[in-house]
Amino acid sequence: MYVPRERLIELRRAFHQHPEPAWREFWTTAKVVSELRDIGVDELHIGREALSDERLAVPDEEELASWRERAREAGADPDLLEELADGWTGCVAAIDCGEGPTVGLRVDIDGLPREESTADDHIPAREGFRSETGAMHACGHDAHMTFGLGVAEAITETDFSGTLKLFFQPAEEVIGGGKPMAESGHLDDVDYLFAVHVGLDYPTGEVVAGIDDFLAITQFYTTFEGHPGHAGARPEEGRNAVQAMATAVQNLYGIERHSEGESRVNAGHVGGGTATNIIPEEAFIHGEVRGETTDVRDYTFERAEQVFEGAAVSHDCTVDIEIEGDAPSAESDAELVELVTDAARGHPDVERATRRGEIGGSEDATFLMQRVQDTGGLATYACIGTDHPGGHHTATFDVDEASLSLGVDVLADAIAATAETMP
Amino acid sequence: MYVPRERLIELRRAFHQHPEPAWREFWTTAKVVSELRDIGVDELHIGREALSDERLAVPDEEELASWRERAREAGADPDLLEELADGWTGCVAAIDCGEGPTVGLRVDIDGLPREESTADDHIPAREGFRSETGAMHACGHDAHMTFGLGVAEAITETDFSGTLKLFFQPAEEVIGGGKPMAESGHLDDVDYLFAVHVGLDYPTGEVVAGIDDFLAITQFYTTFEGHPGHAGARPEEGRNAVQAMATAVQNLYGIERHSEGESRVNAGHVGGGTATNIIPEEAFIHGEVRGETTDVRDYTFERAEQVFEGAAVSHDCTVDIEIEGDAPSAESDAELVELVTDAARGHPDVERATRRGEIGGSEDATFLMQRVQDTGGLATYACIGTDHPGGHHTATFDVDEASLSLGVDVLADAIAATAETMP
Amino acid sequence: MYVPRERLIELRRAFHQHPEPAWREFWTTAKVVSELRDIGVDELHIGREALSDERLAVPDEEELASWRERAREAGADPDLLEELADGWTGCVAAIDCGEGPTVGLRVDIDGLPREESTADDHIPAREGFRSETGAMHACGHDAHMTFGLGVAEAITETDFSGTLKLFFQPAEEVIGGGKPMAESGHLDDVDYLFAVHVGLDYPTGEVVAGIDDFLAITQFYTTFEGHPGHAGARPEEGRNAVQAMATAVQNLYGIERHSEGESRVNAGHVGGGTATNIIPEEAFIHGEVRGETTDVRDYTFERAEQVFEGAAVSHDCTVDIEIEGDAPSAESDAELVELVTDAARGHPDVERATRRGEIGGSEDATFLMQRVQDTGGLATYACIGTDHPGGHHTATFDVDEASLSLGVDVLADAIAATAETMP
Amino acid sequence: MYVPRERLIELRRAFHQHPEPAWREFWTTAKVVSELRDIGVDELHIGREALSDERLAVPDEEELASWRERAREAGADPDLLEELADGWTGCVAAIDCGEGPTVGLRVDIDGLPREESTADDHIPAREGFRSETGAMHACGHDAHMTFGLGVAEAITETDFSGTLKLFFQPAEEVIGGGKPMAESGHLDDVDYLFAVHVGLDYPTGEVVAGIDDFLAITQFYTTFEGHPGHAGARPEEGRNAVQAMATAVQNLYGIERHSEGESRVNAGHVGGGTATNIIPEEAFIHGEVRGETTDVRDYTFERAEQVFEGAAVSHDCTVDIEIEGDAPSAESDAELVELVTDAARGHPDVERATRRGEIGGSEDATFLMQRVQDTGGLATYACIGTDHPGGHHTATFDVDEASLSLGVDVLADAIAATAETMP
Repeated sequence: MYVPRERLIELRRAFHQHPEPAWREFWTTAKVVSELRDIGVDELHIGREALSDERLAVPDEEELASWRERAREAGADPDLLEELADGWTGCVAAIDCGEGPTVGLRVDIDGLPREESTADDHIPAREGFRSETGAMHACGHDAHMTFGLGVAEAITETDFSGTLKLFFQPAEEVIGGGKPMAESGHLDDVDYLFAVHVGLDYPTGEVVAGIDDFLAITQFYTTFEGHPGHAGARPEEGRNAVQAMATAVQNLYGIERHSEGESRVNAGHVGGGTATNIIPEEAFIHGEVRGETTDVRDYTFERAEQVFEGAAVSHDCTVDIEIEGDAPSAESDAELVELVTDAARGHPDVERATRRGEIGGSEDATFLMQRVQDTGGLATYACIGTDHPGGHHTATFDVDEASLSLGVDVLADAIAATAETMP
Repeated sequence: MYVPRERLIELRRAFHQHPEPAWREFWTTAKVVSELRDIGVDELHIGREALSDERLAVPDEEELASWRERAREAGADPDLLEELADGWTGCVAAIDCGEGPTVGLRVDIDGLPREESTADDHIPAREGFRSETGAMHACGHDAHMTFGLGVAEAITETDFSGTLKLFFQPAEEVIGGGKPMAESGHLDDVDYLFAVHVGLDYPTGEVVAGIDDFLAITQFYTTFEGHPGHAGARPEEGRNAVQAMATAVQNLYGIERHSEGESRVNAGHVGGGTATNIIPEEAFIHGEVRGETTDVRDYTFERAEQVFEGAAVSHDCTVDIEIEGDAPSAESDAELVELVTDAARGHPDVERATRRGEIGGSEDATFLMQRVQDTGGLATYACIGTDHPGGHHTATFDVDEASLSLGVDVLADAIAATAETMP
Repeated sequence: MYVPRERLIELRRAFHQHPEPAWREFWTTAKVVSELRDIGVDELHIGREALSDERLAVPDEEELASWRERAREAGADPDLLEELADGWTGCVAAIDCGEGPTVGLRVDIDGLPREESTADDHIPAREGFRSETGAMHACGHDAHMTFGLGVAEAITETDFSGTLKLFFQPAEEVIGGGKPMAESGHLDDVDYLFAVHVGLDYPTGEVVAGIDDFLAITQFYTTFEGHPGHAGARPEEGRNAVQAMATAVQNLYGIERHSEGESRVNAGHVGGGTATNIIPEEAFIHGEVRGETTDVRDYTFERAEQVFEGAAVSHDCTVDIEIEGDAPSAESDAELVELVTDAARGHPDVERATRRGEIGGSEDATFLMQRVQDTGGLATYACIGTDHPGGHHTATFDVDEASLSLGVDVLADAIAATAETMP
Repeated sequence: MYVPRERLIELRRAFHQHPEPAWREFWTTAKVVSELRDIGVDELHIGREALSDERLAVPDEEELASWRERAREAGADPDLLEELADGWTGCVAAIDCGEGPTVGLRVDIDGLPREESTADDHIPAREGFRSETGAMHACGHDAHMTFGLGVAEAITETDFSGTLKLFFQPAEEVIGGGKPMAESGHLDDVDYLFAVHVGLDYPTGEVVAGIDDFLAITQFYTTFEGHPGHAGARPEEGRNAVQAMATAVQNLYGIERHSEGESRVNAGHVGGGTATNIIPEEAFIHGEVRGETTDVRDYTFERAEQVFEGAAVSHDCTVDIEIEGDAPSAESDAELVELVTDAARGHPDVERATRRGEIGGSEDATFLMQRVQDTGGLATYACIGTDHPGGHHTATFDVDEASLSLGVDVLADAIAATAETMP
């Protein structure tokens, strides 16, 4: 065990108690930066220096200012908060361990906008580290950051030779931070990238070395605008945005399947109109399309755009399609999968190490993986199993803290092994 | 009684036995012309001379040639048939009865493409004058032509002073002949126009002097063209014309009601695709829209066009919208309604004379009525009630022949009264 | 002029400044009751005594309590507020003027849940009597109550002999108060009922004696419940309530037109789902259907119910259809139309008195009219024209106060005339 | 080469010239039986003896009688035709070659209902063996029968020891014959089953030893019945079957994707209604659903049934869902794949032998494969590549006759190898 268990639990609980949603990770980034400085790193790029301009789904200024103020009240360093202004959160750090490959570890840092359980059998509530912000770390990103900081401490105790880069990525949950971090330039010299997730229905003691079924995704916010009219007195004056929306929903789900891979569509949140007696003037569809390959996703989204345009034409409305976020598909490279499998099998607490596993969803870590693969490197996305009472994104999600040091050890060993075993 | 009952029955049965659908009224026109020549008229305009170029829904050459040949075999004058080539059927005649107004009487002459009943209690079958052509006079146009010829014979026995014009209009059932006859020029000097229909659920002995609820109508034939694809192997190659059609049907019926009057839409006949395993490449909607006013109809049809275009855009198909026929709405003028009411009340066999009545449908006589009204004249559309066992357009429709001479008398008297009583 | 203009303006402005939406008319009812007591009435039935149990669209307790508290803070009599608990608002008063018929006057009292304009050219804003509650009298019910109180004061100055009953009806805007007031028993001895509205696009100086085109209406709140599922990982576990809703919207607007009269449908407010990546579990349609006759409305609503059920079956969801409010169609009786016309023509400020007019909408006054007509009485719905800068229900709606005394006078004279001129 | 090339070409051209669609393979079966008798087989089960009662998609008597008469005119043995009455076509033969396993070879025998090309560069047209029946062997079943008869001749020249069973299956194109042949009992003692297809976009010289991606399929014929109504006069009397159909089409394509495998839906042929002015009384959808697994197909079809029922409820119509044909998915067994691969690699004309390949579609050979696998046997579905100018099912499809003897040789060798190499 490279890092004392208590140290990791302390870190994880601190993060758990102060979750912040996408682009609002002010306290969180300040905490990460402070810890990294204590550990001692050779390079540290914060906020705007860790991201390109391609941020997606950034909230408005008022929302940002409110969370930044809360971070200040919670004790975050005001000077550092200044650097993070306008939601430029997250950071990239580098630790120089001698000659050798540049190896990246990517973890995400944002919480979810949901209330955490107050139930007695929910450990964070019982043990006093339940969320204080109204948001919740319901997807385990508190554990991910703990992995990141733990590996930073552990790496010097391994026989790793090379440079370790740590990517603390903001805004994963809105598929907003992966792209700007991928395009920041910091990935361009990375030879091997490890991304990590906790849980995913794998129990404590299981490690999955490579996730492979990432669906490429595009999230959109489509609005239809028509013209109001009194439903009783002058229906013909109305141009019905709700009819346009309903037509679009019907045809969106009716987009052809693609023979080159799975596709998904979802009109996850819709609405329109104001009153029973007014022909609805406005309506929206907040949704997403996914594809087993990026091409299948692109095809499906292009068809979705035609569906939206046609629905607007049919009802004499205008339409606006805003892309909120997207992420490509990706595959884990076999060489790194072997390294993680070996590292896991060498750990006394690992009961089961699986080469390939499933997530059945999307992740913007794929932007970083793709960037590394495009520049000749290798990447994998590993999963450290953990017993979690509630499902991901539910109010009773929790991480089994026994998996924290297991995760740090396996990741550190796999990273260390790159220098030895890779060509 | 101006014309012997037997004469009218003989005429009606001759027409009944040789029904011809729209633009195929070769034998019928030849018969009408022959009778008019026997009666003696002062002007006779046949086929192309009785119509403008604006014919709608004309069948193809092969179909026309086949019916013309049948007319020849049934004994129609070959020289006359020559004049009717290419489906230029129908005629306009004028009888000069001295100084006075020009008064028109419009009757329609086409049959319907349906089999006539062979039941024993169906009088035409029992009495041996059932259709010999496969088509059927299932809407009483055989009676209408009898009214027209009967009035031509009767008018000189009344004290009418003026010019009587008789309009034998083809292709009413496809809303195809009204417009070209209205635009032929022959209506332009008509002061008073009477159009007539038999039946319409009014019994023998009842006369309705003015029908008022004509719905303006547009009939369309819309086709969607996409691209085929194997439904199992390559669905994404398909552009689904049936989905476009279904989307259009859904939204067609969903067009807003109009506050200025009733509207109607109907996708009366639709189809698409060829095989279960091929993404459908083609689909069609054969339908109609109607409106209580011509404006309401126009509004509804414009919205229908948007619906079709949007459905095509949504499914990446092309669309073609062909207008097959249309007719405006119309109202009967009060002055002529009074004349018909008076004529009816003066007839011994009329039990009930009603000023205003309903048809609940569309008619292209409205083109002729509107033409006369637009040039300062008056028009009415009268109904001569008749007991009919089956409904209009059904296999057992039949006209009570007792209404034939009643109709001729009332129409002749109303026409005669124009000269006396109108300003 | 029976009542000083200033008195009427003062009343109207007081009401205008404290608008309360349906079933929340606590301050308003207290004010009306207080004024009626000052005027002196012979009977006064408040809240629960003025209504049957058939109240529709009553808000929840918390909402009611909040508005009641505001009424208390605004100075309403606490004892009276106690009587109005649970949203039992409105009242019925009777004034005994001797032998003669019982004549009713119905006015409505609720405001609308919308913000009032703050523009300088909006008189209530400029003159300082803009709404203080966040709601708005944007349909003129402040003028209606002024008519009611004004007539109560005026009636004794006319030569009316009989009993005057005043119906201050709550919750018109949600079609919720008409039915329970109609079934309260207080209408059962009314011989002649006058209902009144201000404006409706008729200018100051015009009076319409009888509105005739009330569309029968049913408002509904339909909810679909399916089952959530992760849109990427397990779409087949979802049962998509938004698809059910979209299907229902498409088919709702596609319900057949009816040959016996106009119909209307509107899905005025819809929504569903929560997040882009979750198959939506819940969706709703808040809408209405209308018909030119009650039968046409009933037909259309029955078809709507089938549409909702079918949409749920198609998507394996459950459906719940809640009727929020409804009102029948109604016609104004010719005898009362004459009385109002005569009264209007006898008033010096009336420039134009019209017998029949249009509203192009729905009103639950029709419940009261129908009740009186069903028990052998007569009813009319009159309109007192007023110049209004913005349309009804808009932020800049306002009443021309010149029409207040005109309205009181005409109504009082028409009521007085019942005793003299009716059989 | 076990069988002279000319012999195989002669057989194939004979079949090609007399294609017969599903269940109408009278001449074809007679020809196969006659050839088998000439070759000499030990068992021969014809028509009703080769099939269970579970035939699907059998045409009506008139259609069957017409094709049987044509077969008689084309020289088929009248006695044999008697045995095939009512469309009991196809046969099963067995050849006893001593001790050893029972090995099956399945080929299908029906043509497609489409016109064959007359183009000069279409070899069957140029060489004079174009279809004489109006139907066409556009999917290579003429080559399949040639493989079957060729292997029957060849097998005695190999060192095969065991029993060879030949399955000449009718009605593959309508997914109608696989199930009854699978349930005939003749498969129950088969240890190893080979099914074979020609072409599938693999060129001459390529052999694919095992097809694996059969999609399970269900074909359906759904009809909606409503009630007619005059679109102008009485729309409310109509119950619109076309609206029900359109609703069903929209929602059919909108059925959720399934996370356990690909699915497909197609409304391949639809129609409804008769005339523009009649509310459509009847409509149909002729379509199919497929799934990567039989479970996914079942799920999708169950959802389709709900979609149909809901569409009927929404439009107050009745619905009838008829399953026309179905077939499960299937996988080729690795052991037989090896045998075919080895046999192919041992053949001088084979340029490329592939273990696994794709068809991207459905086949009812899967019924026979599943039957054998369910009773403990093994099965594979091999493809003998052939250059084909037009795609399968098109008018210019043709088989490169060079692949005929290659196919016979590889199949015979693979069959012979079963006795030697299998446990």
